[in-house]
Amino acid sequence: MTDIKLIEVKEDILSDNDAAAEKLRAVLKKEKTFMVNLMASPGAGKTSLLLQTLPALKQDLRMAVIEADIDSMVDAEKIAATGIESIQLRTGGFCHLDVSMVKKGLAALDLAALDLIFIENVGNLVCPAEFDTGATIDIMILSVPEGDDKPLKYPLMFSKCRALIVNKTDYLSLSDFNMDLMEERVRKLNPEIEIFKVSCKTGEGIDGWTLWLKKKVTDYLGA
Amino acid sequence: MTDIKLIEVKEDILSDNDAAAEKLRAVLKKEKTFMVNLMASPGAGKTSLLLQTLPALKQDLRMAVIEADIDSMVDAEKIAATGIESIQLRTGGFCHLDVSMVKKGLAALDLAALDLIFIENVGNLVCPAEFDTGATIDIMILSVPEGDDKPLKYPLMFSKCRALIVNKTDYLSLSDFNMDLMEERVRKLNPEIEIFKVSCKTGEGIDGWTLWLKKKVTDYLGA
Repeated sequence: MTDIKLIEVKEDILSDNDAAAEKLRAVLKKEKTFMVNLMASPGAGKTSLLLQTLPALKQDLRMAVIEADIDSMVDAEKIAATGIESIQLRTGGFCHLDVSMVKKGLAALDLAALDLIFIENVGNLVCPAEFDTGATIDIMILSVPEGDDKPLKYPLMFSKCRALIVNKTDYLSLSDFNMDLMEERVRKLNPEIEIFKVSCKTGEGIDGWTLWLKKKVTDYLGA
Repeated sequence: MTDIKLIEVKEDILSDNDAAAEKLRAVLKKEKTFMVNLMASPGAGKTSLLLQTLPALKQDLRMAVIEADIDSMVDAEKIAATGIESIQLRTGGFCHLDVSMVKKGLAALDLAALDLIFIENVGNLVCPAEFDTGATIDIMILSVPEGDDKPLKYPLMFSKCRALIVNKTDYLSLSDFNMDLMEERVRKLNPEIEIFKVSCKTGEGIDGWTLWLKKKVTDYLGA
């Protein structure tokens, strides 16, 4: 039996992507543009959160949104209706964004004229967690109907995010979702994470999130 | 409503990959190394076909195999047991190979000392059909238990392959697989395709395939 050479393709590809992400973060820092990578399962409320967040920050920050979607433009159309510039990346089946894809979106924007860019990543809790997009911070949404066990099932996603938005709190009364248990599970993975409990439907809790984000961005722009 | 810019990420990525594949084919041509990209569903018999093919060509051609697997080395171990050099690419969840991954495997081989390299692609009839690997020819296997309707469901895969190996013909007597109907469906997509009916279990039909491949390779090496 001859020797077998083993090559870890994925590690190589991820490390190439990580290096490109660091470079992109440096470019964004130089341009004074803050970029948020927003991740969640399909239907958790990524677009709904943006539709609550953009009007709240519109007076103070110049913003744009990069929407990733496998094969539609419905999310980008909802964003564009708010008057915020919107780029649609059609991924055609890819389950995550990497730096090379994000850069194609950024190339269509004028970074010097923008303070804050949101990337709405592909709806998926697995692959997007592995691929750094070059964003300044990663944010995730967990919606109440998805269940309080998700930190156990998708630990990487909960570990890498700077903030967790728990959306659809309006469902809590109908659900056996245990908020304390979920928080305990998340903090075991990520003690520093900020947790915001919101309902994008009623607007409850949105203020806390937008104030926190605005402070993050203004600190970054002033630095 | 502001305008939305639409960016087709997938087309860009595929066209970058296509350009890299053309370059790799030119390198292989210069090195006089023929490369076969072998694709099929999981369990259709990719490794079994190689285990029949390698001994048949071993006297005449200097060969190596690049195995792609999501997370195991069992296929590479079977190949190595035949005494043929074997590289294992562990894709860690990726559902196809692209040129950059294949090049990582080729970098571990001495092209000047090889006439023929087989790539065993990830078991999947969708994504591997879209990503050119830089191989000289693409080959696919359809196994009888998968059914005669597969050309209707995966037309791109059947359209791009130079040869179709119909494997597990030993199951025909137990199956309602309609060989004539399947061939008709395939030839509608790809009139030039070569079709070989084999049983990797009994060895039936292997000769026709290996003679055809040997002629392809020797023509290429002599050109």
